[in-house]
Amino acid sequence: MVKEVKKDTSSEDFKKSLMAFVSDKGFVYGPSPEIYGGMAGFYDFGPAGKTLKNNIENSIRKLFSRFQFFEVECPIVTPKIVWEASGHLGGFSDPLVKCTKCTSIWRVDNLISEQFEIDTDPLTIEQLKEFLQKNTVSCPSCKTKLSDDVKKHSLMLKTQVGIDTEMYNRPETATTTYLPFLNYVRFFRDKLPFGIFQIGNAYRNEISPRQHVIRGREFTQAEAQVFLFKEQKENFARFSEVENVVVPFLTAKNQKEEKGVDRMSVGEAIKKKVLKNQAYAWTLGITYQLFREIGILDENIRFKQHMPEKLAFYADDAWDLEVKFNSFGWIECCGCHDRTDYDLTTHGKFSGKELSALNTLTNKKEIPHILEIAIGPNRLLLGVLDNFYDKKAEEAGKTKLKLPAKLSPVKAAIFPLMKKPELQKVAKEVFENLSNEFLVIMDESGSIGKRYLRQDEIGTPICITIDYDSIEKDKSVTIRDRDSEKQVRVKISELREVVRKVIEGEDLLKLGKLVEARVKEE
Amino acid sequence: MVKEVKKDTSSEDFKKSLMAFVSDKGFVYGPSPEIYGGMAGFYDFGPAGKTLKNNIENSIRKLFSRFQFFEVECPIVTPKIVWEASGHLGGFSDPLVKCTKCTSIWRVDNLISEQFEIDTDPLTIEQLKEFLQKNTVSCPSCKTKLSDDVKKHSLMLKTQVGIDTEMYNRPETATTTYLPFLNYVRFFRDKLPFGIFQIGNAYRNEISPRQHVIRGREFTQAEAQVFLFKEQKENFARFSEVENVVVPFLTAKNQKEEKGVDRMSVGEAIKKKVLKNQAYAWTLGITYQLFREIGILDENIRFKQHMPEKLAFYADDAWDLEVKFNSFGWIECCGCHDRTDYDLTTHGKFSGKELSALNTLTNKKEIPHILEIAIGPNRLLLGVLDNFYDKKAEEAGKTKLKLPAKLSPVKAAIFPLMKKPELQKVAKEVFENLSNEFLVIMDESGSIGKRYLRQDEIGTPICITIDYDSIEKDKSVTIRDRDSEKQVRVKISELREVVRKVIEGEDLLKLGKLVEARVKEE
Repeated sequence: MVKEVKKDTSSEDFKKSLMAFVSDKGFVYGPSPEIYGGMAGFYDFGPAGKTLKNNIENSIRKLFSRFQFFEVECPIVTPKIVWEASGHLGGFSDPLVKCTKCTSIWRVDNLISEQFEIDTDPLTIEQLKEFLQKNTVSCPSCKTKLSDDVKKHSLMLKTQVGIDTEMYNRPETATTTYLPFLNYVRFFRDKLPFGIFQIGNAYRNEISPRQHVIRGREFTQAEAQVFLFKEQKENFARFSEVENVVVPFLTAKNQKEEKGVDRMSVGEAIKKKVLKNQAYAWTLGITYQLFREIGILDENIRFKQHMPEKLAFYADDAWDLEVKFNSFGWIECCGCHDRTDYDLTTHGKFSGKELSALNTLTNKKEIPHILEIAIGPNRLLLGVLDNFYDKKAEEAGKTKLKLPAKLSPVKAAIFPLMKKPELQKVAKEVFENLSNEFLVIMDESGSIGKRYLRQDEIGTPICITIDYDSIEKDKSVTIRDRDSEKQVRVKISELREVVRKVIEGEDLLKLGKLVEARVKEE
Repeated sequence: MVKEVKKDTSSEDFKKSLMAFVSDKGFVYGPSPEIYGGMAGFYDFGPAGKTLKNNIENSIRKLFSRFQFFEVECPIVTPKIVWEASGHLGGFSDPLVKCTKCTSIWRVDNLISEQFEIDTDPLTIEQLKEFLQKNTVSCPSCKTKLSDDVKKHSLMLKTQVGIDTEMYNRPETATTTYLPFLNYVRFFRDKLPFGIFQIGNAYRNEISPRQHVIRGREFTQAEAQVFLFKEQKENFARFSEVENVVVPFLTAKNQKEEKGVDRMSVGEAIKKKVLKNQAYAWTLGITYQLFREIGILDENIRFKQHMPEKLAFYADDAWDLEVKFNSFGWIECCGCHDRTDYDLTTHGKFSGKELSALNTLTNKKEIPHILEIAIGPNRLLLGVLDNFYDKKAEEAGKTKLKLPAKLSPVKAAIFPLMKKPELQKVAKEVFENLSNEFLVIMDESGSIGKRYLRQDEIGTPICITIDYDSIEKDKSVTIRDRDSEKQVRVKISELREVVRKVIEGEDLLKLGKLVEARVKEE
């Protein structure tokens, strides 16, 4: 008999407060569409949330571009044969049990791992049945003991196009990225390695979607693929760029021995054979950099290796980047996979087209390998909100979202001190100038204090107040730093440069001394 | 008997050349997935095309943000009841006829309007049947006369979620944008008017998708909605911003009288009652500005009014912004619609939730009206490629894509003059600095001339060559202007600012004189 698990409620209060916050402040609404009762696993990203999501996706874009990956967009709706080839139509399914009393339907592997201290990932349908026979797994709705009638439920969303052509909403972006491989070879003029990424939606018909946007039925993926020949893995030109980056590794071995994370440089990880080759190590290195650049603290990141016995049969190695949420604990936000030549070989066979390229080292046509970085932007968005949400006491009304400025939905809010035409005129000029480059808003209503509070809650790093000195005296404005609540005086002519620098990560207060000096000089 | 139409082949050569170009240079591949034979109406946006698409979408974002619209993202997969309420499930269909001989299936209204000089838009199924009885409409495949067995074919893509819940891939983004209305009211603290936009995919199961990405089965929409009370339409605060913008109007009256476009300011259009109210006029004004800012010439833009008899029953007025393609003629790329209070009323009824807000002028709860700007980014992308594609003689190899710099996929290409470590080192430093802000690439292979040609073809505005003077003499580089092919010398320390200014639309050559002067000073 396996041990039953007590439910961990330590983070429940924080979770409740965070969930209310993300909805109240316009980040995520749902399940969507709310007015029609909502469908589990579907969410709306509201005015604050969508802009934050854009900024996260643009951080991903920028990192990939810096490493010369190019973005593509492939259709969501894809023919049946693609998913026959990829194996999704055969194997991509969940084990379900229907409660004989209340008729609720449950994902039985999840129920077992929640109610018992057991990892159900490697269990087959037969093993799950056996477990249900030997143990009492109860229906969460009506508490009846569940039967062993486990059924496979496909996670694919089927549709029809034309008169009767069977097509599917893709279950992942990656497969659709592989298919135009021969076009990429042409674009890169036969030079491998090259990198391609895609940011787009994918679908999984989960039976019980849970944990907010962490496990939605419609979700965004940002998946990058490096196409390279096998021997290019060992001696990868870009490796030196990440060689000295120190990364927290939770190896399969440490997991077995119940040990924690080993911190070492990517170079050391290669020497100690923690990672198998330079190219794959490089994907972990840049992924770690990305999450750090987005602002996740080092202590809230770890790379967890897949246990060798659980690797997909074609995979050579796989590590997940996990982020520590205050609400949900450690959550996988990215996976790095060495997919070998499996995908191009398989789609080559199914399509009858040879998906190969000329390897100038061997002077032969070869099928390249693929290294994949698969990021979940929706999870990352919730992780960012979770990690930067800073709630003070309920009554103080001093909730802050301490986002890095580059992620903030609104970069600057402009406040005319009063609703007077002469102040509004200058405010409008400031607005026009800044809005050519940044998302800024004008707020004219309520006290300055209340206006500050509203911006603090959605993470706006800079508030700009236009007062009578702005017109009469020094052509400068007061800008207030969100986190320190300190103020500096900046010349209107230097404002755009100051906002740009704050977004790039410079400290407004340090910057402030410089710019204030120039205000006083005049 | 109606007149038969001769096929216009004047633009066929250009069209053929353009289609080859967009595929060869990595803009659009398809129909997708090509290796599996392709499914009509689905396309891949390649490495150059997706980045161009991003830049177009970001131009739309920037314009909407400047006018304080906020972006949201709502699910693509939506419950049945939403489309019952919107009327799409009942009415959103095409009339089909199956050829009795070769069994090809055709959209009969399109066939008739192609083979005869007749507008089939207003015809009912019964009227189409009658036309087929009285005229010989032939099957384009086997030339057999088609029968009058016209069938309605739904354009909706159906799927199933959970065990058996019927859901649909949305046929438009707009409806999904309306649904969280009450959340928006909370976000904007009950202050109307406010604006919301969404950029995302939608689906139409066209039977014969044609004209490349102009009419895809999966396509992107960028739809903005202004929510406002009825009386706010007449006296719209932002109207002054567009009052003097001169716009080409092709009114319903002029269309009937076979007259051309009337150019007048938006203010004049209100005075002459060409447009009904200030708020709606404003949507046309900013839409026109957007297309001009994207770089479409004034002569290639016109606003065409829907004929009153063809307006949707709930619509108060509707105008399409059309762009003139060299390949496909005038193509609708955007529609501006006054949708009245129809949508919020309907979804209020179907959901049982009152979709209203407090009108402080009347002190009553009222259902707001919606003004819509519906842009087709995929069409606009093809329009931009079409309008800026500048092909010289085949043999000259001097094809240029004269994109405005802000749309160019790659902002600058960096060329070390030779593959020498000392040049590569400086090139890498330049790359690192620029890639923090822009999408730039490094190209080290082939002659400088060949490297220029490659960049000209994908529209890169700036090429930067690193030579020995860059290291030894003046710490400056040669930058070459795409369109004039002239070169200027710029200090490395000023490069980022120069690239930024060129993207903002400044002329590199004018800028060049200034920056060159500073190189010589030292």
